[in-house]
Amino acid sequence: MGVKELAQKAKSAFYILARAKTSVKNSALLLMADRLEEKSKEILEANRIDLENAKNLSSALIDRLTLNEKRISAMATSLREVAKLDDPVGKTVSAWRRPNGIEIQKIRVPIGLIGIIYEARPNVTADAAGLCLKAGNAVILKGGSEAINSNRKIVEVLQSAVEDVGLPREIISFIDDTRREATLELMHCDEYVDLLIPRGGANLIQTVRRESTVPVIETGVGNCHVYVDESADLDMAEEITFNAKVQRPGVCNAIETLLVHEKISKVFLPRMLERLRSVGVEIRGCPKTREIVPWVIPATEEDWYTEYLDLIIAVKVVEDVDSAIAHINKYGSKHSDSIVTKDYFNARKFLNEVDSACVYVNASTRFTDGFEFGLGAEIGISTQKLHARGPMGLEEITTTKYIIYGEGQIRE
Amino acid sequence: MGVKELAQKAKSAFYILARAKTSVKNSALLLMADRLEEKSKEILEANRIDLENAKNLSSALIDRLTLNEKRISAMATSLREVAKLDDPVGKTVSAWRRPNGIEIQKIRVPIGLIGIIYEARPNVTADAAGLCLKAGNAVILKGGSEAINSNRKIVEVLQSAVEDVGLPREIISFIDDTRREATLELMHCDEYVDLLIPRGGANLIQTVRRESTVPVIETGVGNCHVYVDESADLDMAEEITFNAKVQRPGVCNAIETLLVHEKISKVFLPRMLERLRSVGVEIRGCPKTREIVPWVIPATEEDWYTEYLDLIIAVKVVEDVDSAIAHINKYGSKHSDSIVTKDYFNARKFLNEVDSACVYVNASTRFTDGFEFGLGAEIGISTQKLHARGPMGLEEITTTKYIIYGEGQIRE
Repeated sequence: MGVKELAQKAKSAFYILARAKTSVKNSALLLMADRLEEKSKEILEANRIDLENAKNLSSALIDRLTLNEKRISAMATSLREVAKLDDPVGKTVSAWRRPNGIEIQKIRVPIGLIGIIYEARPNVTADAAGLCLKAGNAVILKGGSEAINSNRKIVEVLQSAVEDVGLPREIISFIDDTRREATLELMHCDEYVDLLIPRGGANLIQTVRRESTVPVIETGVGNCHVYVDESADLDMAEEITFNAKVQRPGVCNAIETLLVHEKISKVFLPRMLERLRSVGVEIRGCPKTREIVPWVIPATEEDWYTEYLDLIIAVKVVEDVDSAIAHINKYGSKHSDSIVTKDYFNARKFLNEVDSACVYVNASTRFTDGFEFGLGAEIGISTQKLHARGPMGLEEITTTKYIIYGEGQIRE
Repeated sequence: MGVKELAQKAKSAFYILARAKTSVKNSALLLMADRLEEKSKEILEANRIDLENAKNLSSALIDRLTLNEKRISAMATSLREVAKLDDPVGKTVSAWRRPNGIEIQKIRVPIGLIGIIYEARPNVTADAAGLCLKAGNAVILKGGSEAINSNRKIVEVLQSAVEDVGLPREIISFIDDTRREATLELMHCDEYVDLLIPRGGANLIQTVRRESTVPVIETGVGNCHVYVDESADLDMAEEITFNAKVQRPGVCNAIETLLVHEKISKVFLPRMLERLRSVGVEIRGCPKTREIVPWVIPATEEDWYTEYLDLIIAVKVVEDVDSAIAHINKYGSKHSDSIVTKDYFNARKFLNEVDSACVYVNASTRFTDGFEFGLGAEIGISTQKLHARGPMGLEEITTTKYIIYGEGQIRE
């Protein structure tokens, strides 16, 4: 079946799902979880084929691709957690009466059919399907070619559960076609697909931005910063910087650049950079950084733009909080940035003027996450300004509609 | 100056505007209003040149292009009204504390630089500039070539006012270039432009959807419906249908198609269609409509998709409320649709299942409007599902950001 036909069927299925009661959606989620565990042998068997085909991939990619009983169990747990969350659909956002007596109600409704384009990790298949289902959306999944066998099997298992609670299996649709043309077709399927969420690196995001005629929410590119202000508690600054860079360097809310006020740079940089080096972080610095810590590698202009996703950090000495803000707004990806300071006015200035989804004072950028924020779920972290910004939970994959009650009112 | 350079300067100016106090923004709006009235002679002179160049245009287009003292006064009044509205910027949308003590606050902030692409009416220049300014956004305007002289002069007047209150003139930027290439350049300016709002017909919207790499909010295409249910009060149905079609046929919230339940079609259609014909409405009907009212012109498949924006209506007899909903969801533009009924369950079904921005029971679709809804302003009516749906006021041209307060928290 072509992508367009698949999307058309998924959209028809959406109109049935949109009317489903919360209890039916929750039953589907719980049965999906049970079935994943029941069928774990079959899923692992499919995953084994993917792993055999993946011998030339990097070890990081193979790690992300690999499933085991524990990971399948985590997928099931995650679906059970989603079942426990409040259903966002049907909530009244606001309501009022106009002078002519019409009553206007703005209510939360599902978006429709959501396309997800993602890479190696097969657990995204179950996570995304579960979140979309809970919010009343049909989903059309396009996973990476390296995970095709795992994804196909997971979808088959999820679809059987959905069908057994009386919902159409097409609400979880899967593009079983690894050609690039299939992805392009999905990006042009604006007749049926209401929203496209690419989950992957900067290249994928760029392609989708350029090609898609379906509205897109950009996610996941995180060129994040910690700025250590003149007045910072240097112990706190060291802990936050270390945590934000080292605790999990491969994720989008880890930092890539450290900005340091020049007045404390001579005291702070030697101890900070030594500590980072001690755990294997490669350090690329501006000329002033290298004056203070000579073993640092010179940073190029390109470094300020780069999301390393690795144990590498760029370091720049700045004149003041304004220079730090200007640097972040110029080179950053509008994801998450933090100031470490004791100064009230600098804290306020940083919070107001840094144009990012999440701006922190005296805390690690690593908290930018749907679960850490307490949303109970996360389908991605939006770095754009329309519709959703920052971690996206269930509410962010809904929209609103106006319903208006009258008794024959017409416009004069 | 090229579009990219213009956008870059406008974006820099945005960062200054984003920090401006509400009182400064209001002073700018009031001075903009005064200056439009003071400089009305110069504006009318520029408009006269556009009108001289416009002799080959349709009379409807010439009407939209024409300015006079009264219309300039209306532009000024509208700016003064915007000054009175609440500033959406800085409002806390929600705030909470996490178990680890970090405090998360979701606040409303400006979007950034907004591009507006519009056609003949020069009053959009002042309206859009005023609304964007109030919400803290810089604007980059691309008007129609037929209004180039009027728009250039209006922008000049507005910029002088903005400058006199100490804001950078570039917060109201104008693409003084009528070539199609300039419009395309704006659509690809995603480095600086955060949002593009096309205001115009279906062709413009299609082009923007296809070409733009900047996020877009689609506005204004309205293929709207009235469905007269079996149980409808037929007098009410007649008034609502007449109002929704005839009161102002050239606007997006006027209806294009009337759907009628077959059980009342023999009683309702003769009187309704006769009344529409009596004021010059051309009627195109399905075969069943034509059995009942033989003088009706046959409708083609194309008619169900068409936004006439004129005194033309398509009429279809349907089996029941489900067929009406299916027709609307298939052929409509997800704008505004109304059911006339006395039946509780059919009303609920229609409200729940019609997948449009505004769904009415027993009222005219003509109320879909920022002013009629009581928003106090309107920058367009969104027919898409992301970010904003239905009439867009000031809040809809803002976004949110998370600010997070900590005392050294790091992630375990």
